[in-house]
Amino acid sequence: QRGAAVTDMNAIWRRREGLALLTDYYELTMLAGYWKANRAQEQAVFEYFFRSLPPHAGFAVAAGLNPFLDYLEHLRFSKDDIAYLRSLKVFEGGFLEFLQEFRPSCTVRAVPEGTLVFPHEPVVQVQGTLMEAQFLESALLNFLNHQTLIATKAARICQAAEGEPVLEFGLRRAHGPDGGLSGSRAAYIGGCQSTSNVLAGKIYDIPVAGTHAHSWVMSFQSEIEAFRVFAQQYADRCVLLVDTYDTIESGVPNAITVYKEMRAAGHAVRPAIRLDSGDLAKLSKAAHKLMADAGFDDPLIVASNDLDEDLIADLKRQGAKINAWGVGTKLITAYDCPALGGVYKLVAVQRDGRWQARIKLSSNIEKATDPGRKELVRCYGADGDPLGDVLCETGEEWARNGRVAGRRRLQPHIETRIKDVAYTESLFQTVFENGRRTAPPPSIHEVRARAQQQLAALPEEYKRLRNPQVYDVMLSPAIGALKEKLLAAPDEG
Amino acid sequence: QRGAAVTDMNAIWRRREGLALLTDYYELTMLAGYWKANRAQEQAVFEYFFRSLPPHAGFAVAAGLNPFLDYLEHLRFSKDDIAYLRSLKVFEGGFLEFLQEFRPSCTVRAVPEGTLVFPHEPVVQVQGTLMEAQFLESALLNFLNHQTLIATKAARICQAAEGEPVLEFGLRRAHGPDGGLSGSRAAYIGGCQSTSNVLAGKIYDIPVAGTHAHSWVMSFQSEIEAFRVFAQQYADRCVLLVDTYDTIESGVPNAITVYKEMRAAGHAVRPAIRLDSGDLAKLSKAAHKLMADAGFDDPLIVASNDLDEDLIADLKRQGAKINAWGVGTKLITAYDCPALGGVYKLVAVQRDGRWQARIKLSSNIEKATDPGRKELVRCYGADGDPLGDVLCETGEEWARNGRVAGRRRLQPHIETRIKDVAYTESLFQTVFENGRRTAPPPSIHEVRARAQQQLAALPEEYKRLRNPQVYDVMLSPAIGALKEKLLAAPDEG
Repeated sequence: QRGAAVTDMNAIWRRREGLALLTDYYELTMLAGYWKANRAQEQAVFEYFFRSLPPHAGFAVAAGLNPFLDYLEHLRFSKDDIAYLRSLKVFEGGFLEFLQEFRPSCTVRAVPEGTLVFPHEPVVQVQGTLMEAQFLESALLNFLNHQTLIATKAARICQAAEGEPVLEFGLRRAHGPDGGLSGSRAAYIGGCQSTSNVLAGKIYDIPVAGTHAHSWVMSFQSEIEAFRVFAQQYADRCVLLVDTYDTIESGVPNAITVYKEMRAAGHAVRPAIRLDSGDLAKLSKAAHKLMADAGFDDPLIVASNDLDEDLIADLKRQGAKINAWGVGTKLITAYDCPALGGVYKLVAVQRDGRWQARIKLSSNIEKATDPGRKELVRCYGADGDPLGDVLCETGEEWARNGRVAGRRRLQPHIETRIKDVAYTESLFQTVFENGRRTAPPPSIHEVRARAQQQLAALPEEYKRLRNPQVYDVMLSPAIGALKEKLLAAPDEG
Repeated sequence: QRGAAVTDMNAIWRRREGLALLTDYYELTMLAGYWKANRAQEQAVFEYFFRSLPPHAGFAVAAGLNPFLDYLEHLRFSKDDIAYLRSLKVFEGGFLEFLQEFRPSCTVRAVPEGTLVFPHEPVVQVQGTLMEAQFLESALLNFLNHQTLIATKAARICQAAEGEPVLEFGLRRAHGPDGGLSGSRAAYIGGCQSTSNVLAGKIYDIPVAGTHAHSWVMSFQSEIEAFRVFAQQYADRCVLLVDTYDTIESGVPNAITVYKEMRAAGHAVRPAIRLDSGDLAKLSKAAHKLMADAGFDDPLIVASNDLDEDLIADLKRQGAKINAWGVGTKLITAYDCPALGGVYKLVAVQRDGRWQARIKLSSNIEKATDPGRKELVRCYGADGDPLGDVLCETGEEWARNGRVAGRRRLQPHIETRIKDVAYTESLFQTVFENGRRTAPPPSIHEVRARAQQQLAALPEEYKRLRNPQVYDVMLSPAIGALKEKLLAAPDEG
């Protein structure tokens, strides 16, 4: 009975239940304003996009959509939520009754989770009542910004590791329990092989992995005794942490002794050590040599200690004898840029039955939004390489004879084109309507496979770790003309 | 009935239930190793500390203890957790039965949440079975590192704001739902006046605040109509966002018109606007002048847009007419340093009934741990200013006639002292024993008040935003002598 109750708690974490109030207060004041102004039935379209990639990144891995849909499916205001809102003495009773009866009814269209996306591209589009579509802003941004950020960081780290396994070890530096859980999920989508976070393993079906801590060694009278006990218990799953006292003088020789003992006892184990401090290039080479000299030709050498894509690439350049990478802090916090600045903007609103496109202006032209409800279409060359993307209207015809003409995003009065297009793909899918998903959620393995397949197909120039080529994103003729018009006269959507 | 169920979900988020598996996999492999080696009854002491402050910080605000204790009180492995662990095919049945019967029995001593702490100081100390104390590592680090990081960042930002209100707006850039929830909690402890996160308001009793979004303005036919509707509904709680189209040409004049209309209609409102883009110094001065010219002498001018302590200090230096600060991304992610590197180290272990101190060595002397179970004592001058802290043994006598002599942390063979000590205070309290807290948790307001009182008492030299003085932390004679001995012979604890 107790077991069943606790099981439900894990489900609550997974299904994101009880989070109706996980929203910015201003969403509720705006909702109450729309309700009071008799605008509860008006329709609107919002789109989620980000304006810039993390520094040095040439792509982003879209992640967080399915957790957001979990949240959306379970979105209900409880009596307790309503009582709390009433206690603020700001909202009218009629509005609170409206909230209590609220059930999601919007339509969500989105690129599938795990798709590569680029700045200014709509990644999620919500069409519904102005009130509902507005309300979803905070939670959607929270889920999408965080998980896209971490999946993208993980993909960069995995690129640097060049196919060698990357083990995500970030829980202890993550931003709270869910910074760890959601972060592990996103890191796996981005390409990590495993997580140390056991709850993430259970909830999301991610492989779990780990070694032991310095405290294991310190709790024994001697390092070799600690190694011996650990190896006896875990045999072929055993990775010995060799830097508690002195890596080369003590840790590696003791590990070699223990692995020799195991081999003598008939265990065909692959020797495995972890280095967690000091100069990882120098120590890994020295450790590898000691182990090779002892007859262990192909040891597993796991490195950890503040690794990120730059350090991994540099260690490889220096010939470090490392073949698995434990990455924690720098991955789980996206250390060099811990926020993706994704936004969720109104692009169209229906007033008196008529759709009007909307634009947000800015003294910075880069921050002006692309107006109107859009489609996202990817153009491919004959070899299947993506060549560029187009933001267009539904049903708009703009591709002719392999030549795609459109307008520049920042100067929509100027034409531009994508050449040698063999075929195009519309990336949006309708993922939620009538209060539920349109299909069962994909497994996390499918999402990860999609990201890995897309990363493999992305040309090298977009995957450089520094100064990658900028991927081409343009407006279709119709969206370009609309933006040109609204930049001059924002009210005329 | 449904309402009650949803209420329980909020409680689960608050009480941190269902998180037994929120741990690194290696904790479980080590536990199984201790269990297998018949060490289940051995006692150990671990201490949590961090080695360095975030860049430019002169102090940290300890936070996360009470959420950790919530977690600890509810720590149970469910049948479902056990089934998941069994599915990994790594753990013996006897060990899994042990886990299923596990109930917390450790003793936790800690500095009260909201206390100022410094590098290398034990902040939390766990004494219990080696297995239990080891197991708590990952969750404890997750809670304490994150919340201490954010509380410290908030305290710096509030210092820069010099007593003007700082409103936390970070949810949309936080690391998942709980990066937002826990982050809001920590930001409030650090000194923020409110949060935009309504669920944080409900769960943690933090004041909630907010304005409206650009989309509110964009959804109306005109900016002035949008302002008028909002002002009519919210009157004296209304803050108008003036930068959707053009701050000075459109937003501020429209806001002035609406506030004049309200005043004409008999509302004694204080005009309030929010600036969210452009040059905040220049725009705030121009907006202030327009409003003053219109007869509004004391407008509330809220600024937001990538603010942090440095930008706030610089805007103030330039005479910006801003009197409230909305801070999001840079606070909720601790953007310039998104991880606190706190660690949890074994300091003593009981073998065959005898306590042995433990040290972790490192080729980097700075990373060698301070051995032994410790007390943390703060020394004060006659005016109540903190002068420095001492890590000592329980019951050790080392203060004589206002002169505290001890050893240097990095060179424990060298004596050092703190002078002019009027009185000392032992900072540790026993907060958890026999499976429960020793007292009801303090309210978040009490925790915040403690932090604010301590910040007020901290001398200015430690509160500079750049290059603050380093606060003195030394070892007592006994701990110093112990460290000196173990550095030479780590096995002789």
